[in-house]
Amino acid sequence: QEDPDQFLRVVEKRADGIIVRGAKMHTTSAPCVHYFVASPSRVMGEEDQDYALSFAVPVDTPGLTFIIRPAAGPLEPKEMESPISSEIGFVECLSVFEDVFVPWENVFMCGEWEFTPQFIHYFSSYVRLAKGTCVAARTDILTGVTALAAEYNGIEKASHVKSKLTDMMMTASLGWGCSLAAARQCSIHPSGIAIPDILVSNAGLYHTRLKFVEHMYTMQEITGGIVTTVPGEKDYQHPEIGPLVDKYLKGKTGVAAEERYRLIQLVQDMTASRLTGYLMSSAICAGGTPETNRVEVFRNYDLREKKERAKVLAKIKPDPYWGRY
Amino acid sequence: QEDPDQFLRVVEKRADGIIVRGAKMHTTSAPCVHYFVASPSRVMGEEDQDYALSFAVPVDTPGLTFIIRPAAGPLEPKEMESPISSEIGFVECLSVFEDVFVPWENVFMCGEWEFTPQFIHYFSSYVRLAKGTCVAARTDILTGVTALAAEYNGIEKASHVKSKLTDMMMTASLGWGCSLAAARQCSIHPSGIAIPDILVSNAGLYHTRLKFVEHMYTMQEITGGIVTTVPGEKDYQHPEIGPLVDKYLKGKTGVAAEERYRLIQLVQDMTASRLTGYLMSSAICAGGTPETNRVEVFRNYDLREKKERAKVLAKIKPDPYWGRY
Amino acid sequence: QEDPDQFLRVVEKRADGIIVRGAKMHTTSAPCVHYFVASPSRVMGEEDQDYALSFAVPVDTPGLTFIIRPAAGPLEPKEMESPISSEIGFVECLSVFEDVFVPWENVFMCGEWEFTPQFIHYFSSYVRLAKGTCVAARTDILTGVTALAAEYNGIEKASHVKSKLTDMMMTASLGWGCSLAAARQCSIHPSGIAIPDILVSNAGLYHTRLKFVEHMYTMQEITGGIVTTVPGEKDYQHPEIGPLVDKYLKGKTGVAAEERYRLIQLVQDMTASRLTGYLMSSAICAGGTPETNRVEVFRNYDLREKKERAKVLAKIKPDPYWGRY
Amino acid sequence: QEDPDQFLRVVEKRADGIIVRGAKMHTTSAPCVHYFVASPSRVMGEEDQDYALSFAVPVDTPGLTFIIRPAAGPLEPKEMESPISSEIGFVECLSVFEDVFVPWENVFMCGEWEFTPQFIHYFSSYVRLAKGTCVAARTDILTGVTALAAEYNGIEKASHVKSKLTDMMMTASLGWGCSLAAARQCSIHPSGIAIPDILVSNAGLYHTRLKFVEHMYTMQEITGGIVTTVPGEKDYQHPEIGPLVDKYLKGKTGVAAEERYRLIQLVQDMTASRLTGYLMSSAICAGGTPETNRVEVFRNYDLREKKERAKVLAKIKPDPYWGRY
Repeated sequence: QEDPDQFLRVVEKRADGIIVRGAKMHTTSAPCVHYFVASPSRVMGEEDQDYALSFAVPVDTPGLTFIIRPAAGPLEPKEMESPISSEIGFVECLSVFEDVFVPWENVFMCGEWEFTPQFIHYFSSYVRLAKGTCVAARTDILTGVTALAAEYNGIEKASHVKSKLTDMMMTASLGWGCSLAAARQCSIHPSGIAIPDILVSNAGLYHTRLKFVEHMYTMQEITGGIVTTVPGEKDYQHPEIGPLVDKYLKGKTGVAAEERYRLIQLVQDMTASRLTGYLMSSAICAGGTPETNRVEVFRNYDLREKKERAKVLAKIKPDPYWGRY
Repeated sequence: QEDPDQFLRVVEKRADGIIVRGAKMHTTSAPCVHYFVASPSRVMGEEDQDYALSFAVPVDTPGLTFIIRPAAGPLEPKEMESPISSEIGFVECLSVFEDVFVPWENVFMCGEWEFTPQFIHYFSSYVRLAKGTCVAARTDILTGVTALAAEYNGIEKASHVKSKLTDMMMTASLGWGCSLAAARQCSIHPSGIAIPDILVSNAGLYHTRLKFVEHMYTMQEITGGIVTTVPGEKDYQHPEIGPLVDKYLKGKTGVAAEERYRLIQLVQDMTASRLTGYLMSSAICAGGTPETNRVEVFRNYDLREKKERAKVLAKIKPDPYWGRY
Repeated sequence: QEDPDQFLRVVEKRADGIIVRGAKMHTTSAPCVHYFVASPSRVMGEEDQDYALSFAVPVDTPGLTFIIRPAAGPLEPKEMESPISSEIGFVECLSVFEDVFVPWENVFMCGEWEFTPQFIHYFSSYVRLAKGTCVAARTDILTGVTALAAEYNGIEKASHVKSKLTDMMMTASLGWGCSLAAARQCSIHPSGIAIPDILVSNAGLYHTRLKFVEHMYTMQEITGGIVTTVPGEKDYQHPEIGPLVDKYLKGKTGVAAEERYRLIQLVQDMTASRLTGYLMSSAICAGGTPETNRVEVFRNYDLREKKERAKVLAKIKPDPYWGRY
Repeated sequence: QEDPDQFLRVVEKRADGIIVRGAKMHTTSAPCVHYFVASPSRVMGEEDQDYALSFAVPVDTPGLTFIIRPAAGPLEPKEMESPISSEIGFVECLSVFEDVFVPWENVFMCGEWEFTPQFIHYFSSYVRLAKGTCVAARTDILTGVTALAAEYNGIEKASHVKSKLTDMMMTASLGWGCSLAAARQCSIHPSGIAIPDILVSNAGLYHTRLKFVEHMYTMQEITGGIVTTVPGEKDYQHPEIGPLVDKYLKGKTGVAAEERYRLIQLVQDMTASRLTGYLMSSAICAGGTPETNRVEVFRNYDLREKKERAKVLAKIKPDPYWGRY
């Protein structure tokens, strides 16, 4: 970091408040809320104390600029072709603070770098649990869509299809299970708040998020190459062309061509549109990355105890100081 | 099954009890207990009613023969070379019933095939939870042994070693987490007994048991090829040869050669002795196989509901009958 | 298949040629070529003889309609935001034959269903080899992009980054190696044409194509969440907003913000645009699916021989008839 | 390394030859050959020149001691219970050189540390190719044994069994393919010797060796828990007990109980005996470890070129110096 402004910092402390400068990346939905709440995103040392900063400001505060990226929507909203991405989307933004004033009553942290480890720990404990349930639930969605595609393609009884659906169910169950266990195995903070177990939640999320992307391609595989070769909605609704598409898209007996068409387009919207990047990135990069999960697991696992137990098995003299403190 | 005796069945019902014939495989520890309790091992139909059988008999009942396989111990027990397998072992046996009499007061099921699905379900729910905690705990052991081997080899700070230890910690955490969640998410049987959730426990166990065997080879990789080339304990304790082994087996500064020798032999006992087969088989084949886990997950997951939700996303008309009953 | 027209078939044979009816799906680039060449896409039986059909027709033949899906391009072509998808794209189409006349000199197969197994085998042997090299080469692209992103983010020396790049290199090398081996191990057809080995090519492609999609998310992980939150090109080139983006997007010393911006947008174009669906689908569904690879491997592996060799190891009497014919 | 003798080094150079001291680990089969050939096992720097040593000595040279570990055989050799480990085994040894004299005509390298990189490279290129074919061929053995076990258990048509066999076939084909490609893509040394491609061979071996161990447990899973619970050979051949074992071990119609018994014992010998450690260790630790493969791939892949190509895609100015030299 060559430029001291690259991260958000306090540049002046006054009697009535502080002046902050810098930017926050990845501030999803920031322009749509009432208050912008800033807080540290990593553990800090004494030399970082100007950056150990947490506060809230109304989004229309002078000096605060949002550089916005539109939601990952379709070229134009269509009912069949973009059933999800026409309706749901997240505004991403880069939030720039150019000497913004924050009154003291809205400042929660200003220089107390020594509390950043706890803050990050508490925050991470919740984020991992929340993200774990999110990815597990989205895996349930992939499972349902894939099973319906298999049914419409007349291959739901094929053993490889059942096996792939089972893999998806495993991921969803495992992701949910680890989140539930993290909640169950929480520690209680002196304030009375429950802090979810960080070891189990990270282990579960790591596994689930990587599998989620694999399941995206499985959903595409079972739906078929048609996902990226299917004629568009305008052709489908054209009086002459539409019936041709209908005729040739017919799947198994008992399923209307339009139902199959809609489902193919749903899979297209999920795996071959701009929304796909959101789904993938939201699984991989949101709430920490897979690497974050690994670091947290390594850091929170009691390796020392396990090494001492190994000595017992090997009949090696234990460390006399272990367990004393 | 050509031979009606191949599985255990009732061949005669009398006023005072029943006569049973056939055999039970895989009856671990059977000869070491007071009572042998038999029960069905799969769901049965009406045609299997003679096999829908559960009872208890003292192990010295006439007509009951145990064909025993000795525990997976070493060629001869040694303190350093077989620290685990000299001390722990399970007697496996094939239990043969040649017209054994069981008095009615010891008969729990005799012909009630229609209760076998519930029986298997209750039994499986417990077995999966128990096996899940077992494999998770054994993964903790592998983690500790591997970490200690890395320390003695002076490579504990190597990034690939930390990464591999992290994988082990993930498995242990995830296996434990899913078992805990299965207990937390139990259903309460009308009798008041808690039945663990079978979906989460199977998903967790499936993942954990397969990883366990992979971690066995990781433990071997990090300890090194020395695991299968290390000189034996007799050489190690020989007055002339011993010091040579000691000299060349020296690992990093501060660790006695004997400590490293003992640890290498522990890994040898776990990954290159007859005990290895027990550890692998106990992870893979005990308490149902990985395939059993897959079948249970597929069977217990509510796929119908997920398919209906997919229809909502695709704007397909839902099944009008779904959710009605 | 309720509708006999759903696949392409001959409906009339005349003195001067044949009349064909039906459709071909997934006919990539069809409208851009001079001649449309149709051929069977699966093995057929006697009852399918009307469908055992291969011929060539000019693309402007009467009765031939192309229902076209535009290439997976961006909302509007931009140099930075869509560096690949503005320039490259494939036209997908559904090709409909409504009683198209084909003169006999352009008919290669018409009813000879008994040759379809060989045709599919020869065709598949080439397709798997070609697809194998394609996915391997694309993995090389992912590797280079990811390595450059790591360099610009200043994390190229991080052990987890090197480890992930190594995984990508493995996939590229392995995919290329199996294709090369399939060519080297070809069989020579009596006509003099080399037929690549189908076992090795399918094994290599299966592995490579699944890993390819995983590497897509790794590329995204290493580039960072910024891939889907980065401000757009219009903001970047705006006189007031651009400098702000520049200031906060600055990566490591020595790399211009614009270079990092361009690279982030390249990753965005590859993993979060409509092109993403093409990259994923082209890896998973083109040239047969992963399941096709599995079926081909199972079908072409000499399992019988391996079972006989197992008998030798177990000292079981071999099958006296094996190897005789 | 505190002790200068821990590795093999030259301690004196004389007119007629050299005196060497130290030890070599993992010298498989050393006592069974005519000449012991020593060579460096890693790249060395100038400070290591005493260790840059290669020579040959007859195995009965004074001062050379072999500390031998017996082959991984059974408790006592038996035809059925240890069909492989009774017959095949490797002698492992620690070879200690206590001031051994080597005449100059048998010294190939003595101090030329600057040639160690090439030496290791040439050696590794061959070892990886050789190990790749070895593990691929052993995977073929696992495949055959597993398929025969499935047949004898009457489950060869089960889809999960076919799927698991397909995974094994994939591994065998892929391992063989990469070795073949490494040979095909060799470079020719000025001496005329072909040096196999090191990138493809390492990628192939890495994948194959890890899968090999997984396939060991699959073989056990498909054969069944009986692998570690089966009654021993003495019971099987006992006049009274034998028939009972026979009766209850009967598999599917048409397969003699003895054939199934022999096959179960073969799997036991491969996955639950001391031989198991050899099979696992030979896959994981021989010819370099999985980590060695990763390092070689990272080191030999032309990452620079791939990064420059990424710049072309992103429309970033290429490095003007690249490709010049």
